[in-house]
Amino acid sequence: MSFGGGSVGRENDTGRIEAFSDGVFAIAITLLIIEIGVPHLEDEPPGTTLPQALVFLWPSFLAYVISFLQIGVIWANHHNRFRFIERSDHVLLFLNILFLMCVAFIPFPTALLAEYLDGSAAERETAGAIYAGTLAVTAVFFTLLWLYATVNRRLVNRNLDPHQLRTMTRRYLLGMVAYLLVFLLAFVNVAASLALIVALALLFVLPEPGERTSEKESPARARERR
Amino acid sequence: MSFGGGSVGRENDTGRIEAFSDGVFAIAITLLIIEIGVPHLEDEPPGTTLPQALVFLWPSFLAYVISFLQIGVIWANHHNRFRFIERSDHVLLFLNILFLMCVAFIPFPTALLAEYLDGSAAERETAGAIYAGTLAVTAVFFTLLWLYATVNRRLVNRNLDPHQLRTMTRRYLLGMVAYLLVFLLAFVNVAASLALIVALALLFVLPEPGERTSEKESPARARERR
Amino acid sequence: MSFGGGSVGRENDTGRIEAFSDGVFAIAITLLIIEIGVPHLEDEPPGTTLPQALVFLWPSFLAYVISFLQIGVIWANHHNRFRFIERSDHVLLFLNILFLMCVAFIPFPTALLAEYLDGSAAERETAGAIYAGTLAVTAVFFTLLWLYATVNRRLVNRNLDPHQLRTMTRRYLLGMVAYLLVFLLAFVNVAASLALIVALALLFVLPEPGERTSEKESPARARERR
Amino acid sequence: MSFGGGSVGRENDTGRIEAFSDGVFAIAITLLIIEIGVPHLEDEPPGTTLPQALVFLWPSFLAYVISFLQIGVIWANHHNRFRFIERSDHVLLFLNILFLMCVAFIPFPTALLAEYLDGSAAERETAGAIYAGTLAVTAVFFTLLWLYATVNRRLVNRNLDPHQLRTMTRRYLLGMVAYLLVFLLAFVNVAASLALIVALALLFVLPEPGERTSEKESPARARERR
Repeated sequence: MSFGGGSVGRENDTGRIEAFSDGVFAIAITLLIIEIGVPHLEDEPPGTTLPQALVFLWPSFLAYVISFLQIGVIWANHHNRFRFIERSDHVLLFLNILFLMCVAFIPFPTALLAEYLDGSAAERETAGAIYAGTLAVTAVFFTLLWLYATVNRRLVNRNLDPHQLRTMTRRYLLGMVAYLLVFLLAFVNVAASLALIVALALLFVLPEPGERTSEKESPARARERR
Repeated sequence: MSFGGGSVGRENDTGRIEAFSDGVFAIAITLLIIEIGVPHLEDEPPGTTLPQALVFLWPSFLAYVISFLQIGVIWANHHNRFRFIERSDHVLLFLNILFLMCVAFIPFPTALLAEYLDGSAAERETAGAIYAGTLAVTAVFFTLLWLYATVNRRLVNRNLDPHQLRTMTRRYLLGMVAYLLVFLLAFVNVAASLALIVALALLFVLPEPGERTSEKESPARARERR
Repeated sequence: MSFGGGSVGRENDTGRIEAFSDGVFAIAITLLIIEIGVPHLEDEPPGTTLPQALVFLWPSFLAYVISFLQIGVIWANHHNRFRFIERSDHVLLFLNILFLMCVAFIPFPTALLAEYLDGSAAERETAGAIYAGTLAVTAVFFTLLWLYATVNRRLVNRNLDPHQLRTMTRRYLLGMVAYLLVFLLAFVNVAASLALIVALALLFVLPEPGERTSEKESPARARERR
Repeated sequence: MSFGGGSVGRENDTGRIEAFSDGVFAIAITLLIIEIGVPHLEDEPPGTTLPQALVFLWPSFLAYVISFLQIGVIWANHHNRFRFIERSDHVLLFLNILFLMCVAFIPFPTALLAEYLDGSAAERETAGAIYAGTLAVTAVFFTLLWLYATVNRRLVNRNLDPHQLRTMTRRYLLGMVAYLLVFLLAFVNVAASLALIVALALLFVLPEPGERTSEKESPARARERR
């Protein structure tokens, strides 16, 4: 009787998790724009022109670009990791819901950053710390999810190369530490913290070590994949 | 002529229902964040700092976390049940739309809870009762949908083990009764009602009886699934 | 060279249209709730309690339920029709975009209805007429899309039973006429118009003629589908 | 060991990109409606009737229709191109995120246009230029993405007809130039700029050159596709 097994050990289960997660990512990333309100000239100081009022919105535009890149790269990383996770169980599902809770929260610190990036030094520091802190907590849950899935190869392919698994785990731990440092940096210098956040997103454009190797060392393999 | 049959008896039909439902779940869960407005210090009592204004938002953050967990777990349960439902008809489709109407409604009582959790005792009770009541009505529609699909195995696999079917049905009836009790409890003690709601979500982390059994009693089966 | 053909004649093309349309449906239906603002007691007449303020929101809740049912049933009908449409071309794609433009518009007349259902007779009539008019225009575009796809079996299966095709087309023309009458009725009696709109949605619970027949006349076919 | 390759060279990878992009498109297009607020008669000049207040909203309705068509057609074009892109890498993923950042931004200039289309000449010009400018930048990123994927057939099918590839690339370059001209035109005449934007969307209804040819030259091929 194959109906008794619940969700344990079924590969298409992770497909469901991915589809649901993709929906949350796509909505969170697209909701970012509705936090930017159109300027109403009657609420601005008298004599303000529309171009000036739009320039005043620069913190909103900057926060939009940074968060869009962040969520986009988190989505790509989430998807890349779920190609290795083959089975699911209730704990993985729950850790993924906690992780998505962080991702779906990102529009709030984004709006906070947009509102207070041109505020007082203390306000800028608070907004920047909460922004970087949200990303750090997101990274922590992502790492927990990955560790839960990979310790003893619990939910990943059992033939997965242990060396590669270690490399990937090290990358996630490093990423988590980087976001925690960026969080601490926000208390010292918000601009530097945000610049590092953008840099961490741009790092993604580099291919992963595994990718580069596989392309260079075995051109034949690339061919046989088609 | 296979085109005459409408939607009765086609397995991929439930795939469509699931995909549409997943979309509604993903949007409802991600919309929760836009109910939390960024604090504007000019609207706060003079002298309020940004960290203080954010702490005042605790009911919003609490409501966000509780509702995110709830919708996440309802999504997981909906998906788990639809793995057993193999056929669909217009009544199932309609019951599912009514069920989704409840799920998509959850952001409203969430915002109500966020607004009145630190209000007067009477306001807190009203907000808590409407919140728990929404979850109870959602559970009722979910149970109706399940009963409609399973009575006489109308839309589930005809080879499904009757014992397992009864176990699952009992779980849903129990869950429905639990949410109705939580609703009544909200009139007595809102905090206890909310705590129980979180506990009901956390219960989900436990594997289902069927899962545990299948893992313990037949390790061989787990192997052959791969 | 199979790459020259563009989108003509590829079955999976309609899969793409359906997936995109499903996304629009799921978002439009879930966005309905954010039009209902949580009542703020400080904006209400002094002495208003929270339960009273919530009761004052009845037009919003009524509009939510009616629109949720409508969009849900339009989604189900859209999907049922696209099971017969096998090919796509640019005109079908464009007609579908115009149809979705109507569906995605529905939250606006819903909010209008919620705002003015307890207004003056003239306001109620305007809101009701715009609401019913939006549904009527949606039905017109849906019928156009169906006629474009089926005339000379342009984009449907060429083996499709002509009798069944005529039956389905007649149903859509009837539905379109019904929504146009409901639109005219709104100028006379808004309540009756809304009641008919709900009744039209509830009609969907009845199986289609083709379904009933196929179940009754050929029980063997139902068996062989599995 | 097939796990080392990362995302390079896997066809289903582009499926993931498309699904995520479709989500962003569907949400951006459906969010357009929430920018149109329901008129509140108490905020209008005394004596304004509801029909009059709705007529005053014409810039919002016009902006809704134009943006819905634009996003709909951009979606269709994005999908058409991704049928030729077979592989993905991190750079393509990143270019696609930048492209989606532009698409998800469109609701903002749409709301700006809705607010200032009946403003002063200078305001109308600013709003129109930002609207057309957003579409032009979107076209630039779309062209970059296409050029990156096709130069040396980097990520497209290696058997793709070079002549057809050149035809498609020329179309995108032409489209990009058209949007840049429409952007410049907005500084001279906003109405003409918007009219051209609608015309560019309507052009999509015409079949692509390749499509027409393939239908005329090889009717046999159309048959064998089924």
